[in-house]
Amino acid sequence: MAESASDALTPAQLVQHALTARQRAYAPYSHYLVGAAVLAADGTVILGCNVENASYPATICAERVALTAAIAQGKRNLRAIAVATRDGGTPCGICRQVMAELGPEMKVYISDEQGDFRVTSVRELLPDSFSRSSLLT
Amino acid sequence: MAESASDALTPAQLVQHALTARQRAYAPYSHYLVGAAVLAADGTVILGCNVENASYPATICAERVALTAAIAQGKRNLRAIAVATRDGGTPCGICRQVMAELGPEMKVYISDEQGDFRVTSVRELLPDSFSRSSLLT
Amino acid sequence: MAESASDALTPAQLVQHALTARQRAYAPYSHYLVGAAVLAADGTVILGCNVENASYPATICAERVALTAAIAQGKRNLRAIAVATRDGGTPCGICRQVMAELGPEMKVYISDEQGDFRVTSVRELLPDSFSRSSLLT
Amino acid sequence: MAESASDALTPAQLVQHALTARQRAYAPYSHYLVGAAVLAADGTVILGCNVENASYPATICAERVALTAAIAQGKRNLRAIAVATRDGGTPCGICRQVMAELGPEMKVYISDEQGDFRVTSVRELLPDSFSRSSLLT
Repeated sequence: MAESASDALTPAQLVQHALTARQRAYAPYSHYLVGAAVLAADGTVILGCNVENASYPATICAERVALTAAIAQGKRNLRAIAVATRDGGTPCGICRQVMAELGPEMKVYISDEQGDFRVTSVRELLPDSFSRSSLLT
Repeated sequence: MAESASDALTPAQLVQHALTARQRAYAPYSHYLVGAAVLAADGTVILGCNVENASYPATICAERVALTAAIAQGKRNLRAIAVATRDGGTPCGICRQVMAELGPEMKVYISDEQGDFRVTSVRELLPDSFSRSSLLT
Repeated sequence: MAESASDALTPAQLVQHALTARQRAYAPYSHYLVGAAVLAADGTVILGCNVENASYPATICAERVALTAAIAQGKRNLRAIAVATRDGGTPCGICRQVMAELGPEMKVYISDEQGDFRVTSVRELLPDSFSRSSLLT
Repeated sequence: MAESASDALTPAQLVQHALTARQRAYAPYSHYLVGAAVLAADGTVILGCNVENASYPATICAERVALTAAIAQGKRNLRAIAVATRDGGTPCGICRQVMAELGPEMKVYISDEQGDFRVTSVRELLPDSFSRSSLLT
């Protein structure tokens, strides 16, 4: 019986994808390079890196680049995301909000530049999140 | 012995300020009205409401309107924030990120339109937050 | 015949308010200090400064701090905005989008740190803007 | 002599890519579906759609999804972008700001859902833009 592609990809491998994506970061202002890799249910891996802007608020973080690219590729069922930075920095609140909308059940792997990572979840990172239930009731 | 102004303001009173601010919400797209009130250490109360935009991502939430207005008034020491909505919705991840930067020790009061509120904190709302320590090391 | 309060305030005076607001900027990441001052139709002047964040996209520019604070103070009729920076930098696209929503007829004064300013308008800064007419038709 | 891939792709074809991407839009709040397609100098086409969020400001527009995905794929030289909506709505100010950073020389094709489009440019859409020259001097 064949394993599905998503079962076959280990967390450590997803982290390696995030490290690869990190090399493409466009971060001329902060010089803080971030890579991300999203795992879709069908086994597809979608990459993201941070893309900064002279107007700082127009910056988009690596996690959101990867998550939105997944949607643009027609992937709606997202299983996990890996994030890689120099120091193992955590996702910001904006990215947690987008994770909660697009993949509330995702595992989140947070890695440093050596590939040493820890495991958490969207629910742990953004407890009691603001969600569509407030808007649509 | 005199109480300071900030001691004199009860959480319920701060929530009432948020309810007042809520009446000024500019929310022609979601019709989800939000008010916020920040309490500075010197007892000043600064109000905010959500300000939406035809380009949804250009919207600014009530909490951030109040927090940034406080900074623009020269208030850097922020003690608490109250947020009021129809249903007691929680602050979004973006607002939690801004709270973590500007007032990580703040108490957060989350109220519905009746003024029934619960108490939480920035640390509870955004555990293990991304912070300047990642950027400046 | 009495002049209205708003007639009484000159562009140069509004620019001075923006320069005052600039001193309150919270810009530990870019060190690029920005001040803004909005003139409401009733003569009220509302101040804003940029408020940065370790997560760069959570930053809010001075112009938007002032514009949204005006709304939170119940001011819906906005006449003009002044922006002050070291070098007379222009408002970013995000701020232009918010200007177009909240004060499409505003005059815009863009000043350097000496108070030397030039005059433009929201229409010139954001021609053919995306607006609610697209959403509500 | 062979034409390059990018020469071979007509504006009308890029618009068709944007129309395809539009079908993947995640827009449960506005129901305003947007697609975008970026053409890189090497002929690669990168797709984007709008990805909304219950917290409206956490929404990312189609144009920025496509532009940042291009960077994450290692494409830094961007030639053109097509945007498709029901009514031929223009890019918002945030997207214009990101275009100015990542592809200031891009042509911009703005299409309605029938594929009828007009041609403009980043310079026309965001005159006198805020840029890194302000930050880095």
